Amino acid sequence: MKEDLKRQIVECVKKVKENNPVTPSITNFVTINFVANAQLAVGGSAAMVFLPKEGELISEVGEATYINVGTLIPSHKETMIGAGNFLKAKNIPWVVDPVAIGIGKTRSEILESFKDNKPSIIRGNPSEINALAGLWNLEGGASKSNVRGVDSTDSVDSAKDAAISIAKHTGGAVAVSGEVDLVTDGKLIIKSKGGSDFMEKIIGAGCALGGVMAVYLSQSSPLIGALTGTNAFNLAGKRASEKVEGPGSFQVLFLDELYKLTPEEISNNDFYVEEI
Amino acid sequence: MKEDLKRQIVECVKKVKENNPVTPSITNFVTINFVANAQLAVGGSAAMVFLPKEGELISEVGEATYINVGTLIPSHKETMIGAGNFLKAKNIPWVVDPVAIGIGKTRSEILESFKDNKPSIIRGNPSEINALAGLWNLEGGASKSNVRGVDSTDSVDSAKDAAISIAKHTGGAVAVSGEVDLVTDGKLIIKSKGGSDFMEKIIGAGCALGGVMAVYLSQSSPLIGALTGTNAFNLAGKRASEKVEGPGSFQVLFLDELYKLTPEEISNNDFYVEEI
Amino acid sequence: MKEDLKRQIVECVKKVKENNPVTPSITNFVTINFVANAQLAVGGSAAMVFLPKEGELISEVGEATYINVGTLIPSHKETMIGAGNFLKAKNIPWVVDPVAIGIGKTRSEILESFKDNKPSIIRGNPSEINALAGLWNLEGGASKSNVRGVDSTDSVDSAKDAAISIAKHTGGAVAVSGEVDLVTDGKLIIKSKGGSDFMEKIIGAGCALGGVMAVYLSQSSPLIGALTGTNAFNLAGKRASEKVEGPGSFQVLFLDELYKLTPEEISNNDFYVEEI
Repeated sequence: MKEDLKRQIVECVKKVKENNPVTPSITNFVTINFVANAQLAVGGSAAMVFLPKEGELISEVGEATYINVGTLIPSHKETMIGAGNFLKAKNIPWVVDPVAIGIGKTRSEILESFKDNKPSIIRGNPSEINALAGLWNLEGGASKSNVRGVDSTDSVDSAKDAAISIAKHTGGAVAVSGEVDLVTDGKLIIKSKGGSDFMEKIIGAGCALGGVMAVYLSQSSPLIGALTGTNAFNLAGKRASEKVEGPGSFQVLFLDELYKLTPEEISNNDFYVEEI
Repeated sequence: MKEDLKRQIVECVKKVKENNPVTPSITNFVTINFVANAQLAVGGSAAMVFLPKEGELISEVGEATYINVGTLIPSHKETMIGAGNFLKAKNIPWVVDPVAIGIGKTRSEILESFKDNKPSIIRGNPSEINALAGLWNLEGGASKSNVRGVDSTDSVDSAKDAAISIAKHTGGAVAVSGEVDLVTDGKLIIKSKGGSDFMEKIIGAGCALGGVMAVYLSQSSPLIGALTGTNAFNLAGKRASEKVEGPGSFQVLFLDELYKLTPEEISNNDFYVEEI
Repeated sequence: MKEDLKRQIVECVKKVKENNPVTPSITNFVTINFVANAQLAVGGSAAMVFLPKEGELISEVGEATYINVGTLIPSHKETMIGAGNFLKAKNIPWVVDPVAIGIGKTRSEILESFKDNKPSIIRGNPSEINALAGLWNLEGGASKSNVRGVDSTDSVDSAKDAAISIAKHTGGAVAVSGEVDLVTDGKLIIKSKGGSDFMEKIIGAGCALGGVMAVYLSQSSPLIGALTGTNAFNLAGKRASEKVEGPGSFQVLFLDELYKLTPEEISNNDFYVEEI
């Protein structure tokens, strides 16, 4: 089974590099530049919008859309909920990052509206995944968000049940970021290793990963999209961290390493698979 | 004629370095930091605003304004249309970047309002320039936007007629970015060489170029402002690309090289001129 | 007295590195990424919001809040004034950066509302500090803003009286950035040396400093928070500038150096103290 996953990763990365897919985003203002640069580094094409309706218009142009609820402004409620409805109606794949779930009513309303629209991939830290399962009243969900600003207070393993519940509900994949990353489609549990402590010392590694998953998702299944992005980040992060002394250099070399990764290298990053 | 252009380039760059002109921007959220850093690197002073009225207030403080329609939010329609009217009324030079023209009604309304206000410089990729000439009903314009998200699907040469039409209409200059860049004031066609494939692998090289053109425009004619910016980017891009292995390092060293360019080096970048 | 200040700096930096305090920001769109990365580099945790109410909700989660009025959008008036009222009511420490004070009525209304809410630290360039004292009708204030876009036209010494007046009014600290930086709590005047000319050649060194002061403020008094941030930036800036040829590299290495600073190094940066 692992060999089959590796073969699909190779194919996904190759197709991205050949097709340069347009992968639009409605994402936060803090890390929007890093998200776009990471998407470009792996071979995608970035296109960010905020205006209500433009989320729909750009999603139609693109091949997979990324929605990150990090820094909301008043018009985002209409833009994001509208985009979610549109993506579902048009059957366009999409990735959601439920950043800081639990802060504010608007954020909750947006994320609640996504339940029925079933995002193809949901990526978050353990506390965010637990809180999302809770918000959606799924098994394994937290009754109360343990999100600490944008940080997690929970471990990856503590979010395993919530991740599986969400994946079963959406029929897509869920990725939980942590020291060892977890990816599941509700049938397989995959753990991917690598990365660097510096990824917590730069802002937006998780956001950029969500954006890159959208790039890969545009050319693959949700599980492969989530796993390919995770493997790529773990390998690029590990390589960059070996060359640097601080987070400024790390972010720069991380993009370089991401750009240089071959399909085979991404597929060969250390990961293991178990059936649920 | 080329020697005269080179002399004017040298003079423009020198004046920028001496005067540190304030060049305000209303620009997109993705690349706003890169635009500002590029403006500072060449010797300008950046000042970004979004609020209706503040576009006018800051334009009055500044010497040339940059408007980039990349990522609109609801209030941008009033801010950008108001700023365009103000800039025309006050006869302040300005640069427009019609990013992603064709996506959404608001973007079209803003760009239509600029027709009568005649921006001093318009900078875009070939598809954007073709689409703008079309939107303005000028000769050579595309009846339909070929913009692919924020990317071009047309070649620079295919946008030559549209660029000339726009320049004749505004009485200013038009710059078309591509493998070889084209700058025209409707009388001369100038082609400038250099740059790097990495400029497509980082987000915002075009936006930053628009912002830098505004800096140079503040101390020169539209044609010289557009050409000086184009030459500077081509030379800095070429130099940076020779030193790096990936897009992360490229963006960093590109700013370093931009900062180090002398007036003479910018004027000596490879370009050629023909009369229309 | 200087030894006591140094001891408090060491203690503050140690506590930040141990506690990883959440320090939320409502800050401008230009430099928001740099602010967050600088906060992370010194050991804080960043969390940016914009939505009305979310300023209050995130401030309650955090230990000190940073408000920077650089690039306003319409909803910011409610968000920022509401956050200021909340921070005062809850007695949560906060830092204000009055960027571009004098541009527009909304900016003035927000900054006027902060007068009674008394921010713990106010950080600005000399022209901004003079203009704020003027807006608040305090002694030493300028009757008219000399702010040039986002730049200062006044010297640090010219803002000394205004800084003291503001500090006496708020009961907190005021930091004035310039070639030699001034920090005062209305009783002591502290001058801190170091930094680099490159800090004027990158966008947002001042914004990032404000964000970092909020991190340190969360574990110390306003005077120590302001001084610790100032010392850290002066030392990291000096070290980074010795290694680079341009502003792109400078920004990257500045974050690296900020990350590597020890408590003792920050306390030993060149500063001197006088009583008022």
